[in-house]
Amino acid sequence: MIRLSELFFTTLREDPAEAEVASHRLLLRAGYIRRAGAGLYSWLPLGLRVRRNIERVVREEMEAAGAQEVLFPGLLPREPYERTGRWTEYGDGIFRLQDRKGADHLLAPTHEEVFTLLVQDLVSSYKALPLTIFQIQDKYRDEARPRAGLLRAREFTMKDAYSFDVDDAGLDASYQRQRDAYERIFQRLGLEYVIVSADAGAMGGSKSEEFLHPTPVGEDTIVRSAGGYAANVEAFETVAPEPLPIEGQPAAVVRDTPDTPTIDTLVADANARFPREDGRAWTAADTLKNVVLRLTHVDGSRELVVIGLPGDREVDQKRVEVAFQPADVTAADEDDFTANPGLVKGYIGPWSPAGAVLGEEAATGIRYLLDKRVVDGSSWITGANEPGKHVFGLVAGRDFAGDGWVEAADVRPGDPAPDGSGPVTLERGMEVGHVFQLGRKYAEALGLKVLDQNGKLVTVTMGSYGIGVTRNLAAIVERSHDEKGIIWPREIAPFDVHVVATGKDARAFEVAETVIAGLEARGLEVLFDDRPKVSPGVKFGDAEIIGVPQIVIVGRDAHEGLVDVWDRATGERQQVALDALEEALGR
Amino acid sequence: MIRLSELFFTTLREDPAEAEVASHRLLLRAGYIRRAGAGLYSWLPLGLRVRRNIERVVREEMEAAGAQEVLFPGLLPREPYERTGRWTEYGDGIFRLQDRKGADHLLAPTHEEVFTLLVQDLVSSYKALPLTIFQIQDKYRDEARPRAGLLRAREFTMKDAYSFDVDDAGLDASYQRQRDAYERIFQRLGLEYVIVSADAGAMGGSKSEEFLHPTPVGEDTIVRSAGGYAANVEAFETVAPEPLPIEGQPAAVVRDTPDTPTIDTLVADANARFPREDGRAWTAADTLKNVVLRLTHVDGSRELVVIGLPGDREVDQKRVEVAFQPADVTAADEDDFTANPGLVKGYIGPWSPAGAVLGEEAATGIRYLLDKRVVDGSSWITGANEPGKHVFGLVAGRDFAGDGWVEAADVRPGDPAPDGSGPVTLERGMEVGHVFQLGRKYAEALGLKVLDQNGKLVTVTMGSYGIGVTRNLAAIVERSHDEKGIIWPREIAPFDVHVVATGKDARAFEVAETVIAGLEARGLEVLFDDRPKVSPGVKFGDAEIIGVPQIVIVGRDAHEGLVDVWDRATGERQQVALDALEEALGR
Repeated sequence: MIRLSELFFTTLREDPAEAEVASHRLLLRAGYIRRAGAGLYSWLPLGLRVRRNIERVVREEMEAAGAQEVLFPGLLPREPYERTGRWTEYGDGIFRLQDRKGADHLLAPTHEEVFTLLVQDLVSSYKALPLTIFQIQDKYRDEARPRAGLLRAREFTMKDAYSFDVDDAGLDASYQRQRDAYERIFQRLGLEYVIVSADAGAMGGSKSEEFLHPTPVGEDTIVRSAGGYAANVEAFETVAPEPLPIEGQPAAVVRDTPDTPTIDTLVADANARFPREDGRAWTAADTLKNVVLRLTHVDGSRELVVIGLPGDREVDQKRVEVAFQPADVTAADEDDFTANPGLVKGYIGPWSPAGAVLGEEAATGIRYLLDKRVVDGSSWITGANEPGKHVFGLVAGRDFAGDGWVEAADVRPGDPAPDGSGPVTLERGMEVGHVFQLGRKYAEALGLKVLDQNGKLVTVTMGSYGIGVTRNLAAIVERSHDEKGIIWPREIAPFDVHVVATGKDARAFEVAETVIAGLEARGLEVLFDDRPKVSPGVKFGDAEIIGVPQIVIVGRDAHEGLVDVWDRATGERQQVALDALEEALGR
Repeated sequence: MIRLSELFFTTLREDPAEAEVASHRLLLRAGYIRRAGAGLYSWLPLGLRVRRNIERVVREEMEAAGAQEVLFPGLLPREPYERTGRWTEYGDGIFRLQDRKGADHLLAPTHEEVFTLLVQDLVSSYKALPLTIFQIQDKYRDEARPRAGLLRAREFTMKDAYSFDVDDAGLDASYQRQRDAYERIFQRLGLEYVIVSADAGAMGGSKSEEFLHPTPVGEDTIVRSAGGYAANVEAFETVAPEPLPIEGQPAAVVRDTPDTPTIDTLVADANARFPREDGRAWTAADTLKNVVLRLTHVDGSRELVVIGLPGDREVDQKRVEVAFQPADVTAADEDDFTANPGLVKGYIGPWSPAGAVLGEEAATGIRYLLDKRVVDGSSWITGANEPGKHVFGLVAGRDFAGDGWVEAADVRPGDPAPDGSGPVTLERGMEVGHVFQLGRKYAEALGLKVLDQNGKLVTVTMGSYGIGVTRNLAAIVERSHDEKGIIWPREIAPFDVHVVATGKDARAFEVAETVIAGLEARGLEVLFDDRPKVSPGVKFGDAEIIGVPQIVIVGRDAHEGLVDVWDRATGERQQVALDALEEALGR
């Protein structure tokens, strides 16, 4: 039993100015965490208890899945990350430092490299495989914008696990065991999740799924169909419409369209001056928008690319980042246009009456990539690569082609799921776990081979599995709170029962102690609000914000053997006799 | 039960070349840790189990002592450390880094600053005090020479606790509670310790004691008397002899002593050419050695100092470092002598017939500090500040004086303890814990004040208490091993019992499983060597190196209900009947 009168703890009456989201606000207000720096948090006793409970759940499920716990340093030398290329690929996203001898080190954001090297050190035969090892450890990322408290911190705690197998079937099995363990973890944590296909490129692997918790404060997007499709927005694959017949389509016509540098102005001008023969209005979907992006590659070199997509779509930043990773992607700026006079801002097209400006890489050195909707036979209004001019009736596959396809356009509700399972819906989600088939990328880069059953050296295939401990804690608060405070699920609550003694009658406090002794005898952990001079209102308010799921109030009826049981989640409060207390608590 | 056939683990037959000390060698060989970089270690499953056990012991004793657990980031912003001056004072000893915005951060070596700020945030009244909070957390130091495995690592785990009190009596009580807890921890860990007075200067406090574990691999020195005195060598205070009468002593005489730049050559020359009148031989103790040191202050400025001490003593590097902290102390080099021609190398004295070269700061700008043994009336042979010349019969207090005293000379067995408790002995020791009265230094620098009982703001007084988790683990191995491997104390052993099944008879393995089920029913944790094709010799060797204190061998007599119980520490092995096993194990 912990006495609130002695606990290192305080609640805040006011919302802290720094807190943007509910979890951040409530964890600060209820005395679970404090800020130690940008994206850096200290854990008060209450917070640490919840954190340890989450760690316990994760550890239990890892061990049940046959994974063995190890622990790596947070500070690591550059060398292994250099060998896999990640030292460079991480860009500004990691903390780098030098020791007193000038040797480069990093604060590890994930540990694929050193897990691989450790297994290489200990394992030489297929007999030691399959092997899955994990750690619960502090990780570091130099976030551009640390925000939302624990949801995007610069130091955070993760469980990361890595599996090692001799063949693909083994990897599939190891992956499935971790995936199943994750489902059990989220069920125990009381956190809904959607398993979505994720892009596998960044980590260099083959298959990747994210566990996204649906929440308005999430930074990810869940794309789902009623038929069972689920992906994050980065992994969504556009369904190309059927090609259209080219034959019989009228020739393209270049028209003067002064002052139409935007899709809106172009559509308005087209409808006003060049109405369609069939009487339907032109819409943005009839135009082909050409967006110029600048890629900065990890070696520092720069490249412009032009993306052609229907004018009613926008380029989605997350999707282009994945499409071009590990390059950095930004919009082209004035300097880029100045340096490339063939790119006529507002009037860029894939084809020019004056000759090929785009669409032929050799001619311009600029790749032209198309959205999959720009199928052969589709006809477009698009820029004519001359100021104030557009071309009407430009037909893909006849008048122009791209250098390739790109998944860059935003995903919209109603878009068809790529597996044919119907139109999709979109929802915000927060990544709370990630399972990943790395394949042989790391094992090859670092030389992890074992002897197989035939005595032949084979490269090991790996999986990587991450779940955020501190982020999940915050996600649970986002999921489970009301305007009064946090409502912890039983499994991870800092205490099982919060006993509040009220009034000036010493007997209530004595009865409370007896009640607590009974609860503790049943193995329950109890927080006791024994503060002598604090009003019942303040005590109840603190109980609500702290969020222990069951509250027992021992007050003026205590001498008659009556206490109140208060359910934090439902708000229901019932008076019960002391000898019926355990039953009322359901314990 | 963990099966050795599945454990992520390997033993090494050979001593790793990198390992200098027993703990490092054995923890590597027995598969507890692996090197991840200089002074950086990864923990394998066996190592992590022991580590967690030590953490548990520490946590239990902290909680029993009323301390509350919190957790701080390892990465911290510069600002609080700037306010206390430690950002600079730490010199090269800490890891510094910048984030993507160029803001300075450090990997915290200890957390006084942020604990102080956290208490300032939560506590405003004496009513919340006394308060002791602790964390078990990874710390970082950029050691010049990381060595000896976990004994001097760059990333290591510590329990650090901090106490907060309104007055000195409160601090004394909080300090005593932690000190008592430390004694209990070391008793439970089975680690002998000597509590020694330590220098309090570096942390800016008043009282400081170290727990030193006596071991030849220790880097510290325990100075003890039979009468109960105990200090580390840095804190030892020289006992000044009684002054001698000056009157009647003959005048000093300068003599030609060519080619006597060392104490040895000087003493030989003096005995050969200038014998003492009383017939006794001159010894090094009759000479006054003057040692030139260069101090580099934290602001980068440099200063020379000269230290005068009896010629039979050496300057002790650790003691001068403490004497001049936080300055860096090195021997003066040729450039220093060239820049100060008054310092005649090999012939430096405190006094010069040609005029004051030393002893008057104004004349030279060089401080001259004396060992306490250079009492008034003591007579010395010392340099005459001219090449090839020494002065004989130079009397302290008559012919020269220092600018102050300094504790710089080495401590020797037989030196008198400062408390009059007799001559001291010296012994190597390893720091395994440190308790420290910080006083108000940090609270003042960071503005931690509370309202006292009279409603007056008072500055809080603090204590700081550290115990190394990973270092203690290594210390236990240093203390408890033999040529075969580790011998873990029961309290922290990775398992309670190691069951080894031997032979080709499947029945032995079946009996072993039954034995294990019985042990587990009693709450014991069991490691099971179930490897099918490994010889008994290899299994026994692995059991010895792993070091679980009790080993049960289930072999060919298993079908007759007989097993062997093997005590790892004593090597005793006895055959017992299965139904007497628990009794034989004493469990």
